[in-house]
Amino acid sequence: MSSHFQSVALEHASRLINHGPTVLVTTRHGAARNIMAAAWSMPVEFSPPRVSVVIDKHSYTRELLHASGHFALLIPGAAWVDQTYAVGSVSGRDGDKFLRYGLATFDGPVLGLPLIEQGMAAWMECRRIPEQHTEDAYDTCFAEVVSAAADPRIFSGGHWNFSEANRDLHTLHHLGAGNFAVAGMPRKAREL
Amino acid sequence: MSSHFQSVALEHASRLINHGPTVLVTTRHGAARNIMAAAWSMPVEFSPPRVSVVIDKHSYTRELLHASGHFALLIPGAAWVDQTYAVGSVSGRDGDKFLRYGLATFDGPVLGLPLIEQGMAAWMECRRIPEQHTEDAYDTCFAEVVSAAADPRIFSGGHWNFSEANRDLHTLHHLGAGNFAVAGMPRKAREL
Repeated sequence: MSSHFQSVALEHASRLINHGPTVLVTTRHGAARNIMAAAWSMPVEFSPPRVSVVIDKHSYTRELLHASGHFALLIPGAAWVDQTYAVGSVSGRDGDKFLRYGLATFDGPVLGLPLIEQGMAAWMECRRIPEQHTEDAYDTCFAEVVSAAADPRIFSGGHWNFSEANRDLHTLHHLGAGNFAVAGMPRKAREL
Repeated sequence: MSSHFQSVALEHASRLINHGPTVLVTTRHGAARNIMAAAWSMPVEFSPPRVSVVIDKHSYTRELLHASGHFALLIPGAAWVDQTYAVGSVSGRDGDKFLRYGLATFDGPVLGLPLIEQGMAAWMECRRIPEQHTEDAYDTCFAEVVSAAADPRIFSGGHWNFSEANRDLHTLHHLGAGNFAVAGMPRKAREL
């Protein structure tokens, strides 16, 4: 595990995806593991920190998620645009994508999920909350966040800090067909 | 209704929120109407176009949503940052926010919901899919999109087209506490 990431307090974990970034979903069950991209995720509660993510029921990720009950969400930075699209375009059933794309992982602290820090803004480990109906009807999987960490150059003290200096870590937001908007410099709303 | 918006094919409607923008939720029931901001929404299916959005069960919007069975999602552009935060910061129970902030509306074509085009990139009318359990447990409301339109300067032919020329319509992504990342110029992933 690279040393520069810092723990994110669980009550701040939902803020990591509050602004709708495209995420990577990693899973592990026994010797099997996988990574995919998901554009459709959101927080549903701050405390306890709960999220939902849409994962196709025919995907290898869903198979491993149901077998293990766990998944991780990783938030890639802008420099990772090619890898993000790549892991979202092929199936892990056709071979280990971590090996195929040379992705170095380490084991998550609570659930042992395969995590990546190089190129990532943040990550979180999640425990599935079984919701059979919404999983079946909407491919929508609910989960509780049990550990989270972020690169303090872009997220610290519970807040995102986008700047010119950390452009490579600005989050990706998939528009479709491999086109990603990158989160730009923030604007502060004035009171009306 | 201003004339420059163009209909979005229903099979493309989910793309309007694919990249995680903060949205405005409008509702109407009889003479009552409301508008709020919501950072937590996502598509759950392309066809039929279905979405989910987190709306607090104690909010006035939830009350009107349940009474009418309908809501609209509006996607504000960057120039609307102050209004977006404002309508997310006060309750419609304390007075009509459209009047308070001088927001001109027109009636949606299918459900008659209060819509706005000035300052918006797009809008969609949605019919609630009753899911009592997820509404209760996660404040997560599922719905099907029944009409959609967008400003063709930024979304046309089923695709977002972010450019320097349409910066005022770039989408807002709420980081928290009134700070919004603005979707910047897109990057196209290269094949690995």
